[in-house]
Amino acid sequence: MTTVLRAALGVDFGSESARALLVDVATGRELGSAVSPFAHGVIEDRLPETGTPLPPDWALQDPDDYVASMGAAVHEALRSSGVDAASIVGVGIDFTACTMLPTTSDGTPLCRLPELRAEPHAWVKLWKHHAAQPEADRINTLAAARGETWLPRYGGRTSSEWFLAKSLQILDEAPAIYAAADRLIEAADWIVWQLTGVETRNSCTAGYKAQWSRRDGFPDPGFLGALDPRFADLVDTRMSRDIRALGERAGELTQAAARWTGLRPGTPVAIANVDAHVSVPAVGVTTPGQLVAVMGTSTCHLALSADERVVPGACGVVEDGIIPGLFGHEAGQAAVGDLFGWWARSLAGGERGDLGTLHAQLEADAARLRPGETGLVALDWWNGNRSILVDADLTGALLGTTLATRPADIYRALLEATVYGTRVIVETLETAGVPIEGIVACGGLPFQNRLLMQLTADITGRIVRVSASRQAPALGSAMFGAVAAGAAAGGYDTITDAAARMAHLGPDVYLPSTADRGAWDEGYAIYRELHDSMAAQGSVMRRLRASQVRARVAAGARTGATGGAA
Amino acid sequence: MTTVLRAALGVDFGSESARALLVDVATGRELGSAVSPFAHGVIEDRLPETGTPLPPDWALQDPDDYVASMGAAVHEALRSSGVDAASIVGVGIDFTACTMLPTTSDGTPLCRLPELRAEPHAWVKLWKHHAAQPEADRINTLAAARGETWLPRYGGRTSSEWFLAKSLQILDEAPAIYAAADRLIEAADWIVWQLTGVETRNSCTAGYKAQWSRRDGFPDPGFLGALDPRFADLVDTRMSRDIRALGERAGELTQAAARWTGLRPGTPVAIANVDAHVSVPAVGVTTPGQLVAVMGTSTCHLALSADERVVPGACGVVEDGIIPGLFGHEAGQAAVGDLFGWWARSLAGGERGDLGTLHAQLEADAARLRPGETGLVALDWWNGNRSILVDADLTGALLGTTLATRPADIYRALLEATVYGTRVIVETLETAGVPIEGIVACGGLPFQNRLLMQLTADITGRIVRVSASRQAPALGSAMFGAVAAGAAAGGYDTITDAAARMAHLGPDVYLPSTADRGAWDEGYAIYRELHDSMAAQGSVMRRLRASQVRARVAAGARTGATGGAA
Repeated sequence: MTTVLRAALGVDFGSESARALLVDVATGRELGSAVSPFAHGVIEDRLPETGTPLPPDWALQDPDDYVASMGAAVHEALRSSGVDAASIVGVGIDFTACTMLPTTSDGTPLCRLPELRAEPHAWVKLWKHHAAQPEADRINTLAAARGETWLPRYGGRTSSEWFLAKSLQILDEAPAIYAAADRLIEAADWIVWQLTGVETRNSCTAGYKAQWSRRDGFPDPGFLGALDPRFADLVDTRMSRDIRALGERAGELTQAAARWTGLRPGTPVAIANVDAHVSVPAVGVTTPGQLVAVMGTSTCHLALSADERVVPGACGVVEDGIIPGLFGHEAGQAAVGDLFGWWARSLAGGERGDLGTLHAQLEADAARLRPGETGLVALDWWNGNRSILVDADLTGALLGTTLATRPADIYRALLEATVYGTRVIVETLETAGVPIEGIVACGGLPFQNRLLMQLTADITGRIVRVSASRQAPALGSAMFGAVAAGAAAGGYDTITDAAARMAHLGPDVYLPSTADRGAWDEGYAIYRELHDSMAAQGSVMRRLRASQVRARVAAGARTGATGGAA
Repeated sequence: MTTVLRAALGVDFGSESARALLVDVATGRELGSAVSPFAHGVIEDRLPETGTPLPPDWALQDPDDYVASMGAAVHEALRSSGVDAASIVGVGIDFTACTMLPTTSDGTPLCRLPELRAEPHAWVKLWKHHAAQPEADRINTLAAARGETWLPRYGGRTSSEWFLAKSLQILDEAPAIYAAADRLIEAADWIVWQLTGVETRNSCTAGYKAQWSRRDGFPDPGFLGALDPRFADLVDTRMSRDIRALGERAGELTQAAARWTGLRPGTPVAIANVDAHVSVPAVGVTTPGQLVAVMGTSTCHLALSADERVVPGACGVVEDGIIPGLFGHEAGQAAVGDLFGWWARSLAGGERGDLGTLHAQLEADAARLRPGETGLVALDWWNGNRSILVDADLTGALLGTTLATRPADIYRALLEATVYGTRVIVETLETAGVPIEGIVACGGLPFQNRLLMQLTADITGRIVRVSASRQAPALGSAMFGAVAAGAAAGGYDTITDAAARMAHLGPDVYLPSTADRGAWDEGYAIYRELHDSMAAQGSVMRRLRASQVRARVAAGARTGATGGAA
């Protein structure tokens, strides 16, 4: 009997490119992959073609780039791997979020219409578009005043990055665009629409980014109308109340999509997912008990619980948000790899080139030190605090410097600070009833910085394991593609079944040091004291920030011009 | 009528070298100078010849280096300037302090005796010898318990660098050396003894470094004997109760000293002085109202008052300590140029070479920013806090960092922090009744960093002027040499007269910005809040330090091996 290859395709849409990965359904073996950068990248200064200038803090994309890059990446992955399109049982995709756009009722992006091409609000707002802060502030104030029951599920505060704020900004600043938008939709769902011809909405982005829950649905029209009477119809007219759970099949590849992807028409396509969240099954986590840390420039933490647990200061809890049938929790740290990179760049005179050698040297020197030996403690808030304080205005701190402090001491203090921040999140989750017995890391950092992994084990007191795959999101998407196919069609019936065969952990296991336990508890207590005192209302850190804002106004500089991203 | 040149010689003994400066008595014009490094420099690892190893934190010198270097420097200054030794009306010297040594009754250093050459305690203890901390702790504890009236004059705490602690360490660790020491004497007074053949003691070192006052004398034998019965005779037997005011004549150059200096026998020699304190008249300050800031790796602040004022947290108040007839106040900041150098070295990968270009670039970038614009605040305690907290265990801090923070932002924050620290000292002096109407800066930094000078004016709200001379200590010593001669012999009768003719300020005057006054008051309030909270007992900074000490013990590392100097 010859073994017939059954492959699944996962496509991971990042901030700069689309990555296609072909995976052996039976074993999870990676058969081939390709990356295609978006032609227009992140649009921050002016629109393509018309040259319309963009205000500060904007970040747009061209949806046609998604189609073009996915097509190019899939073609190249098929070509280079030699995999036959006929052997592909299903397709899954994941996307950054909230990355959203306005379209007509047939899914045509408004920015594709010639008469709206020069209108910034007609384009895709990328996750890091930060210009909707006034709208987020209004949403938070009103929700708190009305005691909206969904607010506590998001740590008491929604973000300017999310769906309601971005939609409300369109209405505020370009009511004609809002009126013309038959649909406001996540790019994740939009690309699935392009693949299948069917409009669907996934439970992950609906829950984490648009305050939807299976029990209560979206924020109600009364709330939306109180923000602006014209906003009352947002959900009923421009979104959808039909939210599909992860693991479902969205539809099958259309003839047109088969042409631009090089795949077979009729290939099953999974409901869309988010890059971080799809990594959870990709590292084999499908039941409560493990914290999945997606570690890169920032870190996203994901965990599961069997019933709803409200976690103070987390980014959200969503039923079916990560694994169907479970409640998924998200938390995050806004600067992790970015923080270590900041220090390396500072030392290298602001260079942005390859700093790998410098990082390696700093890590080697830092690894020789024992807990507490640097005499330093840092607060890792170089880009604000996402969890558990949910405050972009907080800033970094470093304490304990002497003339004998070396760059590697500071590097180690920064590593430790991010892990202390992780421990705050772990303890907050556990206190809220979300069990965290161990940690599984994926993303780029775990493969670059062994010291960081060991510190994570030591400081949190948890065993840390690392993903075998370096492209966990694309692998997770391929797994959901296999689930969209179903076992009868050569895939799997559940993501748990898929994970059992396709997800793998790497050989490295980081065990927490028992000898250093006391020293780390002491270090954490010091971090926590500084954390709580600086986070307090009226703290010296908050006074300092307010003073800076006044100074910038006085200097005539636009606020935020040189500050950390919100 | 031909003008006959009358010159005065000042010799400034630093940590590494002796500098000779010839000055025109009539005008203060500098006629020539020369520097001669000490052959053995600072002895920190092992003794010369015998190779006896030294424990950590020791810093010794060879007194014969002082004689050799002064001889070489004076010869060279005479030769290169063409000044005739016959035209020199007087000689003054200044020294680091407390730099002290044990001698026989004729002034022979014990380390010069062959049988004691291998004994570390027989050598000169340089000011930065920090191994007498246990003795300083005993002195402070006992003085506080006994309510010694001299203790408040020193901010409530004496230093391990000072005379009593260093003497007590000799007794503790080498009682035979203590017994053999007919004299324990400041190197400043010892070199004057070598020049004149007469043993004298100056009021500056006696007051600031050995807790002497004109009213009460030294700590009494009852106190000294309570430290150790054998220590009761320290003052009566091994020191002197005959303390001579600055400005007096110690004696005249002996035949022997004339040979090794190349000067005329009989040349008047002034009572010894200290490098920082002698700078005060050298910048023209001989009456109350100005703060003299000697700014280098660290900064020493000196001010005058007409009557005794006890200043909390200052380093000392001494009658006749700076200008005869006035009370002199000393305060200090332990890391100033050292702090900026630390940052530049960190950025330059630990290099210790010429960082002038880097400093200049950082200063230029930092100068473009407005008050508060960095969003940063630092505590300048990289080498502890000398005034007004008198605590070597305090460490540095930096608050407000973001991913957008640049090296120049941090550089500026460090500059600002040192000036905020200066403002704390200024306000403490004024509150205690020592008037500070303006600031006069000397030392190396004022000539290197104009931004620092402007910040000093802006943040303290005082006009800042800068010494004309770049070698203020040697100039001040020359002025005291002229006073030792007296007006009848071609010099001056008082240091005030000498200063009126010989001291000059440079052309640059830094006026405080009135427009920025509010912004700086706000910045200072933030600094002061952080200052007070971190200085408090049980603060997170103190917990952190204690934790580091425990970690070092656990690591088996010797305490202090990598920490800041005490």
